[in-house]
Amino acid sequence: MPSYKVSYFTFKGLGEPVRFMLAYANVDFIDNRVEWEDWPKLKPTLPLGQLPLLEIDGRAFHHCIPICRYLGSIFNLTGSNAVENYEIDCIADTVNELRLKIAMWYYSYKRVKNEKYDELINDSIPYYLGKIEDQAATKDGYLALKGKTTWADIYAVAIFDYIHDLMGYDIVKDCKNIKKIQQKIMSADGVKRYLKNRPADQIITFN
Amino acid sequence: MPSYKVSYFTFKGLGEPVRFMLAYANVDFIDNRVEWEDWPKLKPTLPLGQLPLLEIDGRAFHHCIPICRYLGSIFNLTGSNAVENYEIDCIADTVNELRLKIAMWYYSYKRVKNEKYDELINDSIPYYLGKIEDQAATKDGYLALKGKTTWADIYAVAIFDYIHDLMGYDIVKDCKNIKKIQQKIMSADGVKRYLKNRPADQIITFN
Repeated sequence: MPSYKVSYFTFKGLGEPVRFMLAYANVDFIDNRVEWEDWPKLKPTLPLGQLPLLEIDGRAFHHCIPICRYLGSIFNLTGSNAVENYEIDCIADTVNELRLKIAMWYYSYKRVKNEKYDELINDSIPYYLGKIEDQAATKDGYLALKGKTTWADIYAVAIFDYIHDLMGYDIVKDCKNIKKIQQKIMSADGVKRYLKNRPADQIITFN
Repeated sequence: MPSYKVSYFTFKGLGEPVRFMLAYANVDFIDNRVEWEDWPKLKPTLPLGQLPLLEIDGRAFHHCIPICRYLGSIFNLTGSNAVENYEIDCIADTVNELRLKIAMWYYSYKRVKNEKYDELINDSIPYYLGKIEDQAATKDGYLALKGKTTWADIYAVAIFDYIHDLMGYDIVKDCKNIKKIQQKIMSADGVKRYLKNRPADQIITFN
């Protein structure tokens, strides 16, 4: 069994999809939560000065979505042809775009934060969630491929869990098809075990 | 031969990587350049209200990087195993992050534009270019895999071409290894032919 080590900050963020992927696959991993005061020393040693970092037998992987796609391919959570893999990539990108809009609001300067919030609540969130929920309905409780859990389902569930913290409420609470996916992933043995022991977040706010 | 149609605005943007992919693969495609006044009518008909849109025999594909990865897989411009494909994804994401930082400056409100510009010029651009140039040096004039052109090379060259327009100068002019890749892609038969007939950009500015 290879050794897996995930390094990320002390909150969910872009580390959570990687943690969820490993948990779902039922592999043991070192959950290295980097304290803010250790960050300045660690940053220059990283491939692009960023976390998450995944080390597999010491080999470094960075960039959240490429890591999840890679883990998907080794844990049999991909499609069976190029079009199916496109479907997976595409919905993961859609979820990532929504995450990015929310993160840009969350970390924005106070002077533009209120106007961005209105745009999020009235436009971006309902628009993206509508599209994602419609797709989950079409795929019958999966996000990319009907009848098969893929890395995009796991990625999305972890990202929605992170978004919950950023927004202060569960944005998918009324999306019954996304909820089905969440329920399925969160109740998988490895994820259940991970969630039971997951440390409480220490969110860092910059303003 | 399937029919290919790319729809994007009248400038390079995120449509250019898709146009470059098809040009590089030497396939004929309809280069549908959407005028700004036609956009409000088109937008609600699109999968996520966004361009680029690629139609292959009428089947719609959206999201720039997933499209390029998909085209890469059908045109044999991918890696030969999961780690190689991770390498390709990873460098494409790095180029995309730089593009996003530049686009966020370009399209930002005037009131924050100057301070973002300084950050770009002094930090982000040299930092990202340093990393990308170093990798291109290691891979001996390729971006992801030594000795093999992949979709990430083509994607990156098209994005740098777009960034040239946004910044008003060629940010990679002193990066001799990135220049090698650019030279290789731009002088491929299909791309050369595309560039010869490419319409002049009509850049849209919002502020």
